[in-house]
Amino acid sequence: MRTDLSKKFGIEYPIFGFTPSEHVAAAISRAGGLGVLGCVRFNDAEDLDAVLTWMDENTDGKPYGVDIVMPAKVPTEGASVDLNELIPAEHRAFIDRTLEQLGVPPLGDDAARNEGVLGWLHSVARSHVDVALRHPIALIANALGSPPNDVVVQAHEHDVPVAALAGTAEHARRHVENGVDIVIAQGYEAGGHTGEIASMVLLPEIVDAVGERASVLAAGGIGSGRQVAAALALGAHGVWMGSTWLTAAEYRLGARHEGKPSAMQEALLTATSSDTVRTRIYSGKPARLLRTKWTDAWDKPDAPNPLPMPLQNILVSEAHQRINEAENPEVVAMPVGQIVGRMNQILPVADIVAELVAGYESAVDRLVELR
Amino acid sequence: MRTDLSKKFGIEYPIFGFTPSEHVAAAISRAGGLGVLGCVRFNDAEDLDAVLTWMDENTDGKPYGVDIVMPAKVPTEGASVDLNELIPAEHRAFIDRTLEQLGVPPLGDDAARNEGVLGWLHSVARSHVDVALRHPIALIANALGSPPNDVVVQAHEHDVPVAALAGTAEHARRHVENGVDIVIAQGYEAGGHTGEIASMVLLPEIVDAVGERASVLAAGGIGSGRQVAAALALGAHGVWMGSTWLTAAEYRLGARHEGKPSAMQEALLTATSSDTVRTRIYSGKPARLLRTKWTDAWDKPDAPNPLPMPLQNILVSEAHQRINEAENPEVVAMPVGQIVGRMNQILPVADIVAELVAGYESAVDRLVELR
Repeated sequence: MRTDLSKKFGIEYPIFGFTPSEHVAAAISRAGGLGVLGCVRFNDAEDLDAVLTWMDENTDGKPYGVDIVMPAKVPTEGASVDLNELIPAEHRAFIDRTLEQLGVPPLGDDAARNEGVLGWLHSVARSHVDVALRHPIALIANALGSPPNDVVVQAHEHDVPVAALAGTAEHARRHVENGVDIVIAQGYEAGGHTGEIASMVLLPEIVDAVGERASVLAAGGIGSGRQVAAALALGAHGVWMGSTWLTAAEYRLGARHEGKPSAMQEALLTATSSDTVRTRIYSGKPARLLRTKWTDAWDKPDAPNPLPMPLQNILVSEAHQRINEAENPEVVAMPVGQIVGRMNQILPVADIVAELVAGYESAVDRLVELR
Repeated sequence: MRTDLSKKFGIEYPIFGFTPSEHVAAAISRAGGLGVLGCVRFNDAEDLDAVLTWMDENTDGKPYGVDIVMPAKVPTEGASVDLNELIPAEHRAFIDRTLEQLGVPPLGDDAARNEGVLGWLHSVARSHVDVALRHPIALIANALGSPPNDVVVQAHEHDVPVAALAGTAEHARRHVENGVDIVIAQGYEAGGHTGEIASMVLLPEIVDAVGERASVLAAGGIGSGRQVAAALALGAHGVWMGSTWLTAAEYRLGARHEGKPSAMQEALLTATSSDTVRTRIYSGKPARLLRTKWTDAWDKPDAPNPLPMPLQNILVSEAHQRINEAENPEVVAMPVGQIVGRMNQILPVADIVAELVAGYESAVDRLVELR
């Protein structure tokens, strides 16, 4: 499973693992892949700095990357207090009513309110970039289109390659023109923001569209070694996986009781590949989420239309906190791909990576035998 | 590209090609795959008999199959004249208004009205089975769920294996319990009736669900040799392709001028992978179609909800005839998968198969080099 890309990064396998958990990200890098830490949850750049320092100390000198959300078309100014004014009362009333119906209690008086959107503002994203570049990061990825040109230039000045998600060949071409080094081909089946074209079709289209100008990672539907082999057969230079790590033993985010899976993880462990939905309720743009009573509520006739990005994320931010603290597996707000149907046990990252490698080898063996 | 399945069928490549055109089906069989003739367009069993006799004479003794639509839940009795009474006037008015707006003229007085649904009734489907079994067919496929048990028994008495489409692992398990020999894993990206789970996720799920009890064909997103390699890496025993053959040189169905592509083919040749839509307007069940002004019209606020199967097909049957005769590439009613983005030239079937084989070999070579 050695590709030009894995050699370039000095990693054992071209497995790029996106996760908001530093514990998971570090474990992916230690296991021979490239852990990519999602930074959107850090509203305060100093918190991110501290976590990246922890990464530096816990990756055994192996490379790791960061994912910073840099949307092209959101307000560059304004704190959440201003944006809040743009949210209709009808939307807030729907959320209060829905959470009450679903038995999700309000936050306690002492709970710090998550301000949600801040990590999605340009000013915050840029402070993330500045902080990250003070650490020995191997990659900056942007989960929403091409990063702004000055960020690409800044990253390249530090010899850090830049990756961006694409849902069509046209997106991919634009990324390459904007200086992006690695295109992440995000198929319909992927968790989080995703387009309509499935990986089997999208991946070779993007590989052909970018040619020698960029490397391509396959994202969407990758959770086992067979799928890694399929992705490389389709021309990818590696894979980008996000969902799979949510049920890694090292994942500790979210309310939980020591030694037990969180309510979110319990929901993922029992879900089938039919239990996801592509919806705008998470961020305002279409994103694939686990289907739960929360997503169902937004499909009902009395539900308002989701707001545009970034307002929808501000709108649901406190709801997400309440849902997390309620710890009910039937009411979960979590992006995840169709691969959730195969996430059926809590496994250490090292075991997940070992299966990816062994499964890949078996799949290639099988193809060789069929010749 | 030799699998147990290709050996069992005595074919060179495990490439199963579904097409309503006998010219294409015969060419697929002659090129080393298995041509599977779609029978739903034959309302009269004698017409089917004549075409199968033509197949017998034009396949150089190579095996071929038939696809007969046998829905589990449609009326077993009643001619179109009875079913017609169940169609609301509002729906007919919408179609008349829409076709007028799109500049699609009425049928001439001498045009034979296509009765549309008849091939979808049990009585007609059974007559298709009876006729087909008088020919040396190698496969009976059902594009809509498991065939009725007595049809499976009848086919097996003639040593003819039975295939059925599945959109979930649960469908696949049910097919196997009903005696189906080959499960066709139909991913979200496929043309025609399709579910929500994309091939990258669906295919290994179905392979694991049926185990040794049945063979599995990959359908949805397969149009090149790389995709065949990906499908076999995911555990498929072969591939099932439908869309690709619509732009084969041998395809002659539909209104056309000698030596030129039809309006439908022109539309397919210029479409991208983003130009399809999954909708109930073709048959009443979700099916992926080329996105055109016709499908757009059904998305507008004044459009009625599609009727259940089989009423929707009766409703649109004459519209489909009118659209065909109008020969406008912007107004087309045609099921096709997302692979349409790569169907960019009219090619002989033999050339398409040659690319599938060569592309497959290159993909496997690449995987071997990466070891």
